[in-house]
Amino acid sequence: MTTVDSTRERAEVAARAGGFLIELIDWLRIPSISADPAHHRDVAASAEWLGAALRADGWPTVEVWDHGPALPAVYACWPSDDPDAPTVLVYGHHDVQPVDPLQQWEHPPFEPLVIGNELFARGASDDKGHVAFHRLGMLAHLAATGRSAPAVTVKLLVEGEEESGSINIRPLLRAHAAELACDVAVISDTGIFERGTPSICTGMRGMVTAEVTFRGPSVDLHSGSFGGAVPNPATALARLVAGMHDENGRVLLPGFYDDVREPTAAERIAFAKLPFDEAAWLAGPAAGSRAAAGEAGWSTLERIWVRPTAEVNGLFGGYQGPGSKTIVPREATAKVSFRLVPDQDLARIADGFRAFVAAHTPDGILAEVRVDEGVPPCRSDVEHPATVAVLDAMGAAFGAEVLFSREGGSGPEALIQSELGGVPLAFLGVGTPADRIHAPNERVGIDLLHAGAEATAVLWRLLGERAEELPRR
Amino acid sequence: MTTVDSTRERAEVAARAGGFLIELIDWLRIPSISADPAHHRDVAASAEWLGAALRADGWPTVEVWDHGPALPAVYACWPSDDPDAPTVLVYGHHDVQPVDPLQQWEHPPFEPLVIGNELFARGASDDKGHVAFHRLGMLAHLAATGRSAPAVTVKLLVEGEEESGSINIRPLLRAHAAELACDVAVISDTGIFERGTPSICTGMRGMVTAEVTFRGPSVDLHSGSFGGAVPNPATALARLVAGMHDENGRVLLPGFYDDVREPTAAERIAFAKLPFDEAAWLAGPAAGSRAAAGEAGWSTLERIWVRPTAEVNGLFGGYQGPGSKTIVPREATAKVSFRLVPDQDLARIADGFRAFVAAHTPDGILAEVRVDEGVPPCRSDVEHPATVAVLDAMGAAFGAEVLFSREGGSGPEALIQSELGGVPLAFLGVGTPADRIHAPNERVGIDLLHAGAEATAVLWRLLGERAEELPRR
Repeated sequence: MTTVDSTRERAEVAARAGGFLIELIDWLRIPSISADPAHHRDVAASAEWLGAALRADGWPTVEVWDHGPALPAVYACWPSDDPDAPTVLVYGHHDVQPVDPLQQWEHPPFEPLVIGNELFARGASDDKGHVAFHRLGMLAHLAATGRSAPAVTVKLLVEGEEESGSINIRPLLRAHAAELACDVAVISDTGIFERGTPSICTGMRGMVTAEVTFRGPSVDLHSGSFGGAVPNPATALARLVAGMHDENGRVLLPGFYDDVREPTAAERIAFAKLPFDEAAWLAGPAAGSRAAAGEAGWSTLERIWVRPTAEVNGLFGGYQGPGSKTIVPREATAKVSFRLVPDQDLARIADGFRAFVAAHTPDGILAEVRVDEGVPPCRSDVEHPATVAVLDAMGAAFGAEVLFSREGGSGPEALIQSELGGVPLAFLGVGTPADRIHAPNERVGIDLLHAGAEATAVLWRLLGERAEELPRR
Repeated sequence: MTTVDSTRERAEVAARAGGFLIELIDWLRIPSISADPAHHRDVAASAEWLGAALRADGWPTVEVWDHGPALPAVYACWPSDDPDAPTVLVYGHHDVQPVDPLQQWEHPPFEPLVIGNELFARGASDDKGHVAFHRLGMLAHLAATGRSAPAVTVKLLVEGEEESGSINIRPLLRAHAAELACDVAVISDTGIFERGTPSICTGMRGMVTAEVTFRGPSVDLHSGSFGGAVPNPATALARLVAGMHDENGRVLLPGFYDDVREPTAAERIAFAKLPFDEAAWLAGPAAGSRAAAGEAGWSTLERIWVRPTAEVNGLFGGYQGPGSKTIVPREATAKVSFRLVPDQDLARIADGFRAFVAAHTPDGILAEVRVDEGVPPCRSDVEHPATVAVLDAMGAAFGAEVLFSREGGSGPEALIQSELGGVPLAFLGVGTPADRIHAPNERVGIDLLHAGAEATAVLWRLLGERAEELPRR
């Protein structure tokens, strides 16, 4: 890592901190929940909000791509005034996770609240906060360098359905391949290892989500008149879910591990060097979990980063109201998701799940299976000049050595990479594991958003200065 | 069975059929769902409705017992004018099951609908229809015999929380032991084997209901950041539910079968004589089930009538909305019920369930268990003169031989028996397995309600004529 001076960028970020926060709060009020069709108008409103804000910032090209099937995405481009400058594409998203269970939020999720350095709202970290710091970073870059156009051509792609698995990003990328052409893609939807330990991500898990419904009798049956003599779909479903793992925590779908690229010994050593405090991680506000558990033979970080998993995300069937209702329920449903690692193949996992369900469907039960398209896993080349520049920019912004980590979550990064002709990826995110993304009471550190803006401002300068090192495409 | 002439009673029932139906429809409009506190006012309104109706019928004593903890019950007494007449207590209930899933009702559950001989409404069969035919039967008895008071002293106890497990009937029975004193209790909350095959019930299963919640992390966790590394309470719950039965369908709670009184060979032969068409039963409107399944070594009727069972009635945890939400849910809950046969003991079953949950609670999960008080199983003595009189009265009303069956469902009958000093029980019900009790689109055959009224009218006459045979208490 090279030491880089970011005094000017930092000053320009600080000078704009008040307006930055006010505008981010305004954006966070829009409940852009892509998973819920009732909120698709809000997703559109969120895109329009961002488009207007980018125009106000001075971006020469701003478009809201709202031609379906994808929910509205925002595209912007600010060309460099240097005709030989490389082109960088920044990826983020403006849709957010659902908010249930709503009663567990201490403050309404779409009424942003600032307490000291903390900003609370759904999307504060994942991912509106990240997109917002790119706006701030561009303005700081121009002001700090005295330029009227950035040192590199910067494009933004801010998607509208990342939290729904980016299910329509492929046609979006194909329809706009020309506009999105770039030399490197900077991904800003991840985080650092923890506050005080900045890091950059070198890979993400992929994901397949699925749902299985078991249908038994045509109506809920009286458990006294029928119980014990007909198959109970909720019992059958419980057996299916219980059968997804063996006693060592290994996933029992056929062929599940066939394509897994095991981490190298060097990688396992590097992960072990991170200051990971498992007890604190378990007890922390982001987890509050009472034990570590998972696949035997792997550390907790390895279980999250380099091992594939199967989780049941939701389970429901029969009576849920007060008191009891003594029925054999007519149906029961499980929502499940599989986190995948390189080089697992989406279609093969989907086939494995369908075969697993078929093998666990007893006589008298009809199974309905839905498997979503999913997102593949991806990896970043840590020696690529763009990754090195991100490392230097982050080091300047955080004033500390930047380590390597991975991300257990999933995103459309692998699709961006493949659809844009194998473009290299570099990750620049400032979220922390304490941000409660996807959970009630999501929050973000405002100082970390500032650090993200500063790193971005420095990064555009460094990529301009090092333009000759960067392979063009 | 003795052949009894019921011409007069039948004519008097027929003469009152129109008013009977209109009044029953009026009563069925009241959504007296005892399991849901939001409907407790309706339970009270239902009790007041019945009290007013009985007073209008001429019952000399009518009381609504609304002094808690039980939901309002209705008591009525019509003393015989013969001082040596025996006393009969009739038991029924006026509360009804919840109605969800509401969208599966073809017609709103509390807007009764008559189509030909069918009356559709929640409670039409279970149990307002049964209580209503007792009103009609008493009027027919008096008219047919020309009496101004019945041949036997008849008491009614119409409970208000049978569908909530009669959880407060014990203090109710104790508080009113003097009013409820009787020589025999006639239970009208069961049915016949099927339309065309009248039968009387000789026993009912008991029941224990319970709920277990597994709590894991303090918030829903991002399945990418935490999945595979912390215990998932929904997975743990699925394993618990899956572990309730072995591969032969036997329940694996410790000590579950210790006190089961196995049916005699003669009983098994008697059951096998019933015209049970398993395929029709499975395919019928009451089931729509695609297969029979259950404990190995027992017939379907035996599985329902004389074998204890464990069923999961509801299962829920995590995300249930549209699309997917990739979380490790913070908690998951199962509602379960156990149907019990003589001589299983409620407390022993409850202890077994608690021990079973404890054995299935993994590290990092906290279990919360609620076991309700439950109702014991009960049996009726088929040679008791009151049972023989019911058999004769049913034979007259149905014009057919009356067979013996059992009831897989549960009620407070065993508590009535024990709290009233071991009073003998006789069952007189006209519901059929096609009535969809506890399910959407509950209905009842209006002609069967008329047959119930006729049987009741005849029964009071027969018990008066045979007063000397009936043991007094």
